[in-house]
Amino acid sequence: MKERIKIFRELIKEKKMLTAMETLIEWDIETTASPKNAELLSKMIGDISMRNYNLSTSDELNALLSFFMNNRTKINKTLKKEVEILTEEAERIETIPPKEYQEYSELIAKSHSVWQEAKVKKDFGIFKKNLKKIFEFTKKFAKYEQNLEKNKNKSVYDILLNHYEKGMTTEKLDIFFDGLKKEIVPLLKEVLKKQKKSDIKIEKVDINTQRDFSKYLSQYLGFDFTRGAIGESAHPFTTSINKNDVRFTTKYTESDPLSAFFSTVHETGHGIYEQQVGDNLVETILETGGSMGLHESQSRFYENIIGRNKSFWKGLKKTKKLYPQLQKINIDTLYSIINKVEKSPIRIEADELTYSLHIMVRYEIEKEICEDKIAIEDLPKIWDEKMREYLGITPKNVSQGVLQDVHWSCGLIGYFPSYALGSAYASQIYHTMKKDLNVEEILEKGELPLIQQWLENKIHKLGLSKDTNEIIKKVTGQELNPTYYIDYLKYKYLELNK
Amino acid sequence: MKERIKIFRELIKEKKMLTAMETLIEWDIETTASPKNAELLSKMIGDISMRNYNLSTSDELNALLSFFMNNRTKINKTLKKEVEILTEEAERIETIPPKEYQEYSELIAKSHSVWQEAKVKKDFGIFKKNLKKIFEFTKKFAKYEQNLEKNKNKSVYDILLNHYEKGMTTEKLDIFFDGLKKEIVPLLKEVLKKQKKSDIKIEKVDINTQRDFSKYLSQYLGFDFTRGAIGESAHPFTTSINKNDVRFTTKYTESDPLSAFFSTVHETGHGIYEQQVGDNLVETILETGGSMGLHESQSRFYENIIGRNKSFWKGLKKTKKLYPQLQKINIDTLYSIINKVEKSPIRIEADELTYSLHIMVRYEIEKEICEDKIAIEDLPKIWDEKMREYLGITPKNVSQGVLQDVHWSCGLIGYFPSYALGSAYASQIYHTMKKDLNVEEILEKGELPLIQQWLENKIHKLGLSKDTNEIIKKVTGQELNPTYYIDYLKYKYLELNK
Repeated sequence: MKERIKIFRELIKEKKMLTAMETLIEWDIETTASPKNAELLSKMIGDISMRNYNLSTSDELNALLSFFMNNRTKINKTLKKEVEILTEEAERIETIPPKEYQEYSELIAKSHSVWQEAKVKKDFGIFKKNLKKIFEFTKKFAKYEQNLEKNKNKSVYDILLNHYEKGMTTEKLDIFFDGLKKEIVPLLKEVLKKQKKSDIKIEKVDINTQRDFSKYLSQYLGFDFTRGAIGESAHPFTTSINKNDVRFTTKYTESDPLSAFFSTVHETGHGIYEQQVGDNLVETILETGGSMGLHESQSRFYENIIGRNKSFWKGLKKTKKLYPQLQKINIDTLYSIINKVEKSPIRIEADELTYSLHIMVRYEIEKEICEDKIAIEDLPKIWDEKMREYLGITPKNVSQGVLQDVHWSCGLIGYFPSYALGSAYASQIYHTMKKDLNVEEILEKGELPLIQQWLENKIHKLGLSKDTNEIIKKVTGQELNPTYYIDYLKYKYLELNK
Repeated sequence: MKERIKIFRELIKEKKMLTAMETLIEWDIETTASPKNAELLSKMIGDISMRNYNLSTSDELNALLSFFMNNRTKINKTLKKEVEILTEEAERIETIPPKEYQEYSELIAKSHSVWQEAKVKKDFGIFKKNLKKIFEFTKKFAKYEQNLEKNKNKSVYDILLNHYEKGMTTEKLDIFFDGLKKEIVPLLKEVLKKQKKSDIKIEKVDINTQRDFSKYLSQYLGFDFTRGAIGESAHPFTTSINKNDVRFTTKYTESDPLSAFFSTVHETGHGIYEQQVGDNLVETILETGGSMGLHESQSRFYENIIGRNKSFWKGLKKTKKLYPQLQKINIDTLYSIINKVEKSPIRIEADELTYSLHIMVRYEIEKEICEDKIAIEDLPKIWDEKMREYLGITPKNVSQGVLQDVHWSCGLIGYFPSYALGSAYASQIYHTMKKDLNVEEILEKGELPLIQQWLENKIHKLGLSKDTNEIIKKVTGQELNPTYYIDYLKYKYLELNK
């Protein structure tokens, strides 16, 4: 047993190194590499991911996994969890014929630029064929997975949901989104009616100043720059080489300093999570944050619950580090500016209140495609209908409509619901946090480390060692309950627009 | 033959990808990665370089090289040159027993931090043991190389020189440095006597402003940022993923804006060289700049001959982009500030006139160690003696003396002369360039692309396809002739200090 664990650790070390290499090359592509060099860097990623694939499906690793599985009672909790995750991964990969997987990978590699072209040219027709194939492959692979004993009763879309959020089902999500729809659609109408118009415009802030401030802000929130870095990219993201080297990006727009402000706060939330994974997990594959939804809960907690909180801004104003352009605006006006509700066609520009409606549109479309209820050809039309229904607006063109998101072109289907789940988890966690901490006071005093430590102890240090369900239940005393999210939104936005 | 060339190209593609991966990881270590993560990233480099080593010494590649060597007359010039370089590399590697090479690699991997510690603590004793071993390995490996037929008459140090500058010998360098010594030591004394004292201090410039200006400056000189990037690191350097992705770094000091100014100009020189390698070489191993000396000639050409030229500064002043702190100083004063001669103990801070004296100290020491004439123990003493002899100063401590440079800790022995050769090549090239171009007028008008194009056509586009000797002879009509360098220095510094 001891000898086997030693060999296993060596393989995991190798696997983690390969994953870290891929992460590093991807970081470079997004932040530094010349676009003219995209082909070479993609080739590097292909090379490394093939080595990683070979390692994951190697007889050596599989034999060890079987051995540990058969001796489940004799290994510690951490190893057990690792074995479960790796076995699941291997089982899943093995349901797919290698040739089809290869074809699919090539399709995905090509689709990003096709999607980009379609978006630029505002022409769904350009992307239609690729999108159709991506959904076909995805459905086909999910059907292969249905052959696994544990999946025999799961629908295609449920299988996809499980890739990002273990234990999530269409049934649960239908209830979740129905609840949101019933409450948020009327709330939105009410808020939009009551919301006062303000003619205060945020003045521009030069990009160097924004860059310096973003670093300050991230540090203020608790990000540790001795174990991480900030970069710039077209689409902000966070990535982790390991817990000692966590990186995120922001995108700066001179005329809209709040854009980088909130994306920095959001990514800092992801980053702090990765930096606070427990030291006991560093040699394991559990050295990373939990499910997509849980990860998103941390970034949204920081972005919305902290970042759009009046007390947080009071605290920030006291530091005198805020841009003079913002410092001079009184706190109530500022608070209403950063929480202004608007019917925008674009998800990533949406406010807290409309955000989940955007997700709902995507959720329903994905689900219906997987249930063979709608055809890819009809997507632009269906998209616009749903936008009218939930948000009351019609996108001007497909680039502001069905083509706006990158996800489907990367094969991420079943991923969108995690965003809404993240917001809901965040509110539920916040509800519990307030029992332990006087959050408002902490924010006014700028004592952000207290919040950070609370999250570390309750969530972050666990890494991937527990499922999201378990963590949420242990921290909040119950499973996902969207009531907290709805109550949070109602209270905040009715109070703000009295 | 056709089939073999096809297989060869595939192997070269793979080899170039591996080298590019290493370069990319090194870039990341220097610019972004957390120092706390150094171990993981070193492990990545080790992994990739081992794959690269295996490829370089593979039977498959070696069989192809032999075949091409035996059919030398039937292959084109480019392939012939590649085969020569790769064969030489393989022959050299094969003289070293793998176990010793492994030991040496481990020694080098460890020595950097030992050197760093010794430098910080100003204690030669800390580094002595490692340095001794590095020289021992290096000498031993050079002796193995003496067994190759072509090397049987070469001394140990000549073999090392050839690693960085093909065809270079102690005999040639002795003549070269003796010439310099005879002319520059008295010139230095004269200049120091005549040089007027100025009490104008350059005011500080904030780092964001320096960062923006460095990018502007590099573009002004001709660097193409659609095929490259600028970063920041403790020690400025240039690196090339390939000609479409060339990167360099600068280090910014608020109180000394000229430091980043000249390091940007220097690295831009390296960068332009790499960006202008011929498109015909992109699929070959010749897609990179020439020998160390020739590369250094391009960076020094830009840094000194262009960057410290009065007409260049006149041109820059006209753009009105210069820092106000510099813009307000009159051109003659500026010119004397940027060409101030000083006896500094530190090589990288040295002016144009004293620079080669610093190199001479290192050249003589390396040579004498390789000839077993001096012992490592005595280095601090010998260093200081030579500094007194050539520069008339004694370093305050070993960190300002024998421990100042990183090179030996990386195993770079025989490398320093390239720096001085670079300056000499640059002057010789400049002499020729002036026959074709009115350089002063071009600089005043800010028409830098004309200079860049001249260098592209004469030197850059050739990449590694010709040896430095050949290129210098073809461009200037003669082999290396230090007279141009001495004349350049004499003319410039006597004129400046009349």
